[in-house]
Amino acid sequence: MTTQPSPMTPLEERPAWKRRHLLDLDDFSRDELESVLSTAEAMKEVLSREVPRVPALRGTTIANLFYEASTRTRSSFELAAKALGADVINVAAESSSVKKGESLIDSVRTLQAVGASLLVIRHWQSGAPYLVARHCDMGVINAGDGWHAHPTQALLDLLTIRSHLGDVQGRRVVIIGDIAHSRVARSNLWGLTRIGAEIVLCAPPTLLPAVFTADDPRALPAVTVEHDIERALDGADVVMALRLQLERMQAGLLPSLREYAHLYQLNEERLALANPGALVMHPGPMNEGVEVSPAVAHGAQSVIEEQVSNGVAVRMAVLYLLARGNGA
Amino acid sequence: MTTQPSPMTPLEERPAWKRRHLLDLDDFSRDELESVLSTAEAMKEVLSREVPRVPALRGTTIANLFYEASTRTRSSFELAAKALGADVINVAAESSSVKKGESLIDSVRTLQAVGASLLVIRHWQSGAPYLVARHCDMGVINAGDGWHAHPTQALLDLLTIRSHLGDVQGRRVVIIGDIAHSRVARSNLWGLTRIGAEIVLCAPPTLLPAVFTADDPRALPAVTVEHDIERALDGADVVMALRLQLERMQAGLLPSLREYAHLYQLNEERLALANPGALVMHPGPMNEGVEVSPAVAHGAQSVIEEQVSNGVAVRMAVLYLLARGNGA
Amino acid sequence: MTTQPSPMTPLEERPAWKRRHLLDLDDFSRDELESVLSTAEAMKEVLSREVPRVPALRGTTIANLFYEASTRTRSSFELAAKALGADVINVAAESSSVKKGESLIDSVRTLQAVGASLLVIRHWQSGAPYLVARHCDMGVINAGDGWHAHPTQALLDLLTIRSHLGDVQGRRVVIIGDIAHSRVARSNLWGLTRIGAEIVLCAPPTLLPAVFTADDPRALPAVTVEHDIERALDGADVVMALRLQLERMQAGLLPSLREYAHLYQLNEERLALANPGALVMHPGPMNEGVEVSPAVAHGAQSVIEEQVSNGVAVRMAVLYLLARGNGA
Repeated sequence: MTTQPSPMTPLEERPAWKRRHLLDLDDFSRDELESVLSTAEAMKEVLSREVPRVPALRGTTIANLFYEASTRTRSSFELAAKALGADVINVAAESSSVKKGESLIDSVRTLQAVGASLLVIRHWQSGAPYLVARHCDMGVINAGDGWHAHPTQALLDLLTIRSHLGDVQGRRVVIIGDIAHSRVARSNLWGLTRIGAEIVLCAPPTLLPAVFTADDPRALPAVTVEHDIERALDGADVVMALRLQLERMQAGLLPSLREYAHLYQLNEERLALANPGALVMHPGPMNEGVEVSPAVAHGAQSVIEEQVSNGVAVRMAVLYLLARGNGA
Repeated sequence: MTTQPSPMTPLEERPAWKRRHLLDLDDFSRDELESVLSTAEAMKEVLSREVPRVPALRGTTIANLFYEASTRTRSSFELAAKALGADVINVAAESSSVKKGESLIDSVRTLQAVGASLLVIRHWQSGAPYLVARHCDMGVINAGDGWHAHPTQALLDLLTIRSHLGDVQGRRVVIIGDIAHSRVARSNLWGLTRIGAEIVLCAPPTLLPAVFTADDPRALPAVTVEHDIERALDGADVVMALRLQLERMQAGLLPSLREYAHLYQLNEERLALANPGALVMHPGPMNEGVEVSPAVAHGAQSVIEEQVSNGVAVRMAVLYLLARGNGA
Repeated sequence: MTTQPSPMTPLEERPAWKRRHLLDLDDFSRDELESVLSTAEAMKEVLSREVPRVPALRGTTIANLFYEASTRTRSSFELAAKALGADVINVAAESSSVKKGESLIDSVRTLQAVGASLLVIRHWQSGAPYLVARHCDMGVINAGDGWHAHPTQALLDLLTIRSHLGDVQGRRVVIIGDIAHSRVARSNLWGLTRIGAEIVLCAPPTLLPAVFTADDPRALPAVTVEHDIERALDGADVVMALRLQLERMQAGLLPSLREYAHLYQLNEERLALANPGALVMHPGPMNEGVEVSPAVAHGAQSVIEEQVSNGVAVRMAVLYLLARGNGA
């Protein structure tokens, strides 16, 4: 039984978050996940208004520190912040003092000292947001770190699934593709299993984390591996295709794009093996014609653009909850 | 006879625009042009106030997606949006997911999905904004595409001419320079001829579009070609010098800068051949000493900085009209 | 005797600033410095509020034009502007028309023409803000020009010293490191001597401006040179370590980092020679382990992060005073 507030509870009556940072979903309880999602539902309501703005974080400054290029995640956080009335400082590593050799910690402390109370950070190095959280007093939000974690992506995926399928408990979610190098998959594994879904991973062995390739006791019990895509899709409620980074091929992990598409592309024929109305998801940006066929990407079952819209609501919820938790 | 609202008609009483996008001026009627200009005059009044802001687009998000560097046009749209109370998301191609190989359409759909309702796009490829307009539900504004079109520049040129000369009908406008590669000239040809001006193009044959070099029936009747700058300037009411891209020389289209300046530079002696008080215009950035002499660029007849100021008013008008047309 | 307003005088009752630009501190009187600092104290009070915002500059547009990468200074000015309710246009040289070869003056005039009334400029060339101030009608703030000046950094240093030590008159301030190439040191020399401090410069002869290496009559009387760091620190009230640019070594001005650290690093042992409670300052970004030891950088006497926070208050004061002086 969960005790999270209903979507109808006014924002200011929701309990303050105990959490100071959002680094990954590995230590979230089901209740806490549901509570974030219910806050995100309230934010969706805000976004549906004619003037989709609330002054909940007026006077708060949020810093976006991005060490990797991004359109989607950066814009999404920026709009989420603005929709809450906060001010945003964007710092892209390539145009900042990082060029001068300023250290990560130094940059972060600068942003704190100029008055930011929440830091959204994307970094190519796994673990960077954890390091940062230990060395500053801001609330830190991991917006993607190396191959490690991308918790707001996993939350928006949960929100999207829940809004279509209702309870996620017992649902069969198939994740196809380059799982080994995917921070999206990794955070989704935590979120989805915690909320009660069953997960099937489908990938060539070279793109699967080692922990799943043998009978490793660390493997999560709700997660199974199925190399054959047709068997994997059988009975699926949700199918999530991952972006194939083209540099994987250069690294010798794949024979060819054609071969990969032949074996693992989500196309209409294969999607028909899943449950009727199964959701098609992708964290973007897509390589259409590689991991997903154009017809499926833009087909009736695709909720890919909805994932992006839900991203704004989820980030509003996270910013709001962390700002309250940090007393910002 | 035109039926556009007078500059005194309050903004909210003006008729909603039927147009969803602003891609070029080729399909504008004279009435429609006059109506945009009259809305821009109303925006100039807003900009002259002590607090030059109106909340007309509060809660609206405008995305600036620039695939080419720009100070002038990007700042102008950004300020126009802010003056109307809108929020702005800036995406420069070099610091976005474009680097990851994200497609144009994917980037645009992301911006739409995060909540933008108007898209301002500059792209090095002619036609890109048209492609985008077909694949998204946002109102699309072409802020310059390749050598093709730059409609807001042409509108601000019209506004500048009208505010100095009153009626543009029958005025002689001389455009000098690299017309073949100029999106500014191309959009001005549409706008100026539609509003009733006579145009003289003056350029070396290598920098003139092929359609004007022979008796091509597609040539617009109000447009004539005159290779001799002295003859071209005779009786001019407006003289517009275009930026000479230095790479044209490397491409063998010009013998040398000195030769070009000798034959086509707008200097004081030549300007004296035009009508007294003829306006000097340039879309910027200028190569002073090449297409225009410093004395003329900063002389009494120059309205070049006024063009930039008028750009903000014109873009406010366009954003406002499109936002109303799109129900944003 | 100084006549500056007390920190308690409401902002709007303070006398308008006569100054149109802030280019350096060389022509500031002690009274004028104290007046800026007292306005900055009032801004610190604003920043300590729950909603740290005042609408003093609503409707004003401030342009940040940066020809050099910066996190600290750019964010600081941006937040200062937003805290005053102003709108900000950021232009980074690398993503603007500067790439097209647009001249500095042309860029600046564009920003003025689109409606900016204050320009914050950082440029790698000494003197660039002076040139700009002569060619535009905006109030110009030098945010760092080459090796020349960085007046807002010197002001925030003064504010930090004053808030800890009270009167700065007669205080011994030791500046250690690459003084020859430091715009921070240069502006601090003006500000600190004008406000009555005594300054000791401590650096290898290759990193000291020529004016200080001999008995040059242009040398300021309150400034002495002491090559031995232990002797320099004796009796110090403030110790300011400067960033050592690693390219100085490549230029042959230094034998090695190890040698430099051995002779000039501010470490705990050396700091103990200064007065008890002497302030440790650094303009950032630091090379920890080179010009300053980590223990000192993060020790009890360090006010380095406070310098950054004070930067926002000082920049609010400067923007506010200039906006009033310019009638913006």
